Amino acid sequence: MTTIPLEPDELLTTTRSVRKRLDLDRPVPIELVRECLEVALQAPTGSNQQGWHWLVVTDAGLRAKIGDYYRQSFEAYRASPTYGGRASGHSAERQAVQSRVSGSAEYLAERMGDVPVHVIGCITASEELPAGNQAGLWGSLLPAAWSFQIAARARGLGSAWTTLHLRYEKEIAELLGIPPNVRQGVLLPTAYYTGETFKPAPREPLDTVLHLDRW
Amino acid sequence: MTTIPLEPDELLTTTRSVRKRLDLDRPVPIELVRECLEVALQAPTGSNQQGWHWLVVTDAGLRAKIGDYYRQSFEAYRASPTYGGRASGHSAERQAVQSRVSGSAEYLAERMGDVPVHVIGCITASEELPAGNQAGLWGSLLPAAWSFQIAARARGLGSAWTTLHLRYEKEIAELLGIPPNVRQGVLLPTAYYTGETFKPAPREPLDTVLHLDRW
Repeated sequence: MTTIPLEPDELLTTTRSVRKRLDLDRPVPIELVRECLEVALQAPTGSNQQGWHWLVVTDAGLRAKIGDYYRQSFEAYRASPTYGGRASGHSAERQAVQSRVSGSAEYLAERMGDVPVHVIGCITASEELPAGNQAGLWGSLLPAAWSFQIAARARGLGSAWTTLHLRYEKEIAELLGIPPNVRQGVLLPTAYYTGETFKPAPREPLDTVLHLDRW
Repeated sequence: MTTIPLEPDELLTTTRSVRKRLDLDRPVPIELVRECLEVALQAPTGSNQQGWHWLVVTDAGLRAKIGDYYRQSFEAYRASPTYGGRASGHSAERQAVQSRVSGSAEYLAERMGDVPVHVIGCITASEELPAGNQAGLWGSLLPAAWSFQIAARARGLGSAWTTLHLRYEKEIAELLGIPPNVRQGVLLPTAYYTGETFKPAPREPLDTVLHLDRW
């Protein structure tokens, strides 16, 4: 499969979380998912350990069960006091963005089980870690997951980065036979994109989060 | 600045950890770093929180101090029983790769303070997190850090993903004035790349880490 030709910046700035514009009726060829994973495996890992594992779930029954867990977790999340940017002191403009994000997240939560491909990125976590250094662990998996999404976007696929399933990490591990020393890091529902173009999203200005030399 | 035109797959598969081929003598214009960060900010974050902060350290004295901490942490890491893939049961071929990676990591550890730009990706972690869900926290920072590296590579810059500085996270936070509710996730030493081309790295085959429907 030839990818869509794109300038690097355009590719990186238009790979968005796709939640509403996922084609739930069109199957995704497994070969396309494999291509995206081949690209993902070129991401770096700490000490080149490559301790990742990738669950690709297309079985409808399994997806429905994952979707049930996801929806339950989303319901709990929706009831939390910070849901949708509540009590965050955002500007009206930002609050409007947050409202759209929440609506889109609710839409996906209702349909997670129907998204044709669930990709779950996992990592072996049995090795001794420096105390508290979970950033080191996740740094050996999450860049590859992001590469997967970018490679998917270059093939006309949309995906979303979700972690709400982790509330039921043990249940999903049992469902899929994931060993106890393997941690799930991200669930990437993936499907053909039904939108026409991918656009960059509004963001807070760089200077609000950039610190030169000192905070 | 125009980026290097590259097919998406080539861009993603040739963005490597650069440790030996960093130009320690050529300053990197801050505008170039800002461009890479602008691209990075388009990565997704959980609930669109954008809770990240980016420390860009070019001051020579501060870099030297970070470099000292980094070298001390590397020395401790080198003394650990799993260093360099020891006791891992790797094939001879993989062992040779691990040996090269270790040599390259040692090279960088000796010179960290001399790399012209240190980018430290941070995230505000004061909000209530679902129990144990550190993957969710880091998923809101680390994709952006990887976007930074890819955007840098498209500009002829090299960088490496490092987390060994986290052994001295508190000391570095004090040095740079990072508030206590802000966690450091990755240190990206960044410089002009002195190599001629970027090539993909050897990886274990996809089928050793891919699980269809069930583990």
